[in-house]
Amino acid sequence: MKLLRVGRPGEERPALLDRDGITLRDLSGLVADIDGGLLADSVALNRIRAAADAGELPVLDADGARIGPPVARIGKVVCIGLNYHGHAAETGAEPPAEPVVFLKAADTVVGPYDTVLVPRHSVKTDWEVELAVVIGCTARYVGDDEDPLSYVAGYAVAHDVSEREFQIERGGTWDKGKNCETFNPLGPWLVTSDEVPDPQTLGLRLWVNGELKQHGTTADQIFTVAEVVRYVSRFMTLYPGDVINTGTPAGVALGQPEPKPYLRAGDVVEAEVEGLGRQRQEFKPA
Amino acid sequence: MKLLRVGRPGEERPALLDRDGITLRDLSGLVADIDGGLLADSVALNRIRAAADAGELPVLDADGARIGPPVARIGKVVCIGLNYHGHAAETGAEPPAEPVVFLKAADTVVGPYDTVLVPRHSVKTDWEVELAVVIGCTARYVGDDEDPLSYVAGYAVAHDVSEREFQIERGGTWDKGKNCETFNPLGPWLVTSDEVPDPQTLGLRLWVNGELKQHGTTADQIFTVAEVVRYVSRFMTLYPGDVINTGTPAGVALGQPEPKPYLRAGDVVEAEVEGLGRQRQEFKPA
Repeated sequence: MKLLRVGRPGEERPALLDRDGITLRDLSGLVADIDGGLLADSVALNRIRAAADAGELPVLDADGARIGPPVARIGKVVCIGLNYHGHAAETGAEPPAEPVVFLKAADTVVGPYDTVLVPRHSVKTDWEVELAVVIGCTARYVGDDEDPLSYVAGYAVAHDVSEREFQIERGGTWDKGKNCETFNPLGPWLVTSDEVPDPQTLGLRLWVNGELKQHGTTADQIFTVAEVVRYVSRFMTLYPGDVINTGTPAGVALGQPEPKPYLRAGDVVEAEVEGLGRQRQEFKPA
Repeated sequence: MKLLRVGRPGEERPALLDRDGITLRDLSGLVADIDGGLLADSVALNRIRAAADAGELPVLDADGARIGPPVARIGKVVCIGLNYHGHAAETGAEPPAEPVVFLKAADTVVGPYDTVLVPRHSVKTDWEVELAVVIGCTARYVGDDEDPLSYVAGYAVAHDVSEREFQIERGGTWDKGKNCETFNPLGPWLVTSDEVPDPQTLGLRLWVNGELKQHGTTADQIFTVAEVVRYVSRFMTLYPGDVINTGTPAGVALGQPEPKPYLRAGDVVEAEVEGLGRQRQEFKPA
C-alpha cells in the first residue's frame, strides 16, 4: 500500500493512493492518522488492505491539497552518514568501518512539496536524496538470528538537506548543519514493506533546477538496510514511527569542484527513489 | 512554581510541589498535562499560580508514587558539549570557540528516580549532571537585542548519561553514545524561570554510590544559558517543551586516571542542581 497524509500542516487526513496511481482514497473513516501506533497495529493495517481490495474506500477529493509527511508524530530521525561508496569517495572520506550515526530532530520533517528554507547566513546548503526506512515495531538489540527487515513498516523518499558550513566548519558534531527547520522533506508516500521485497535494488535520483545531480542505487550502500536496523538497535531503541535516513549516493554539491554549486533561494530540487515517488521543493530564504 | 508529573510511565498526572517543599498538589483539575502547550500558555500558568496562592489546589496523595519527567511530549533534547572550563580541561579538549551542539532523542528521557540501563556490551558508561533548560516559546533566530532567557519556561536537573566507547571510539558523531534507552533522567521538578533569577550561579553536584564525583557551578560555563539559547536558535528552531542540556562540570569518569571508574549495574547515582532538586538512579543491565 501507498499511505499518505493530505491537508494543511497539523490537519492532515490519512489517505491511500489507489493502485491506479492517481486516485486518492480517504482512510479517515477507518483510522485516525498514520503514525507509529497504526504502523504497529497489523489488525488495523489489514483492515485498510481489505477495504482497499474490496473497493470500499471513498474517493478523497484532494485536488490542489497539500501532501504532508506520510507519518505523523515521528519520534526521531536517525541518519546514516557516508553510507554509499560513491558518496564517501567524493567527500574524501574512507568508507567507514561501521555505520556513522547522527540524528535529525523530528520537527525538521515537512511534506514532500513544502518549501525548504535556506538558513540565514547559509552559504553551503546542500542536497541529499535518501531512502528512508520507517519502523513498524520496537527494535531493541535485534539478534543475529533475526530478520531486521521484519521491524520495518515501509519506505519513503527523504531529502536530508544539509548545511555544510554548519555541519563541518563550526565545531562539534554534524547535528548543527542537519537540524535547520524544514530540512527533512519526507514522502510523498509510505510504501509498505510488502511492496518493497528488496530495498537494495532501488534507484535514487535528484535534480536541481531540472539538472540531474544524483543518480545512484541502494545496491551501492556500504551497510544494507537490514545491517543498519540491526546495528542502530544495539545503540538506541527504535520505536514504531521512527525514521532512518539510510544515506545518500554520490553527487552532492560538497563533492563537486570549486565553486561548489550550493543551493540558494529560488532553486528547485526534485528527488525520487524508484517505486517510492518523487518530491519537489522550492527553496526560499528563512 | 515547582511543576512535576506523578504516576506510572504514560499515566502521569500534573502536580505542583507546595511552598512547604513536601506537599504535592493535584493540577489535573486545571490542566491536562505539563507539556509544551502548557508552557507556552501564560494564561493557564497564571491560573495555576493563582490557585496555588489562594490555597485552592487539592492535596495529591502520592505516597510511594513514581515521579515522571516533569515535561511530557518533549520534542527534542539539544545538548551542549564541553561547556565548562573544568570539563573541557579534564577531557583534554581546548575550550570550544563556539558552542558544541549535539542531540539526544526525546525517547531517552525518563523520570528522576527511574532505573537507568547500562547498554549491553558497554564498558564505559559515564555520568554527567547538567542544568536543563526547558523552552517556553518558539525561539527562532533570537536577535542580539532580545533577552534569550525570555524564551525559557524553566529549569530542571538532567543527567546526560553517556557511553564513552560508543560516543568516541565507534566512528561518526557523538550521538551513538548519547541515545541509549533511559539515558536522560530529567527532574524531579520543572522550576519556573521566575524562581531562577540568575541561572549562572547554580551549584551542581553528583555522587556515585555516595561518593561526591562532580561539584561545580554554572558560573564555570563557557557559554551562558542566554548565549546558548541565542546560538542554538540560529541553527535550529526551538519549540515549547524542547529541552537544552547545557553541559556538565568537571568530574566525570572519562576525566579520571586509569582505571577509569565507569558505571556498572548495581551502581547508584545521585545528581542535584541547587534549588532544582535531586535525582537518584540505580543502574541495571539492559
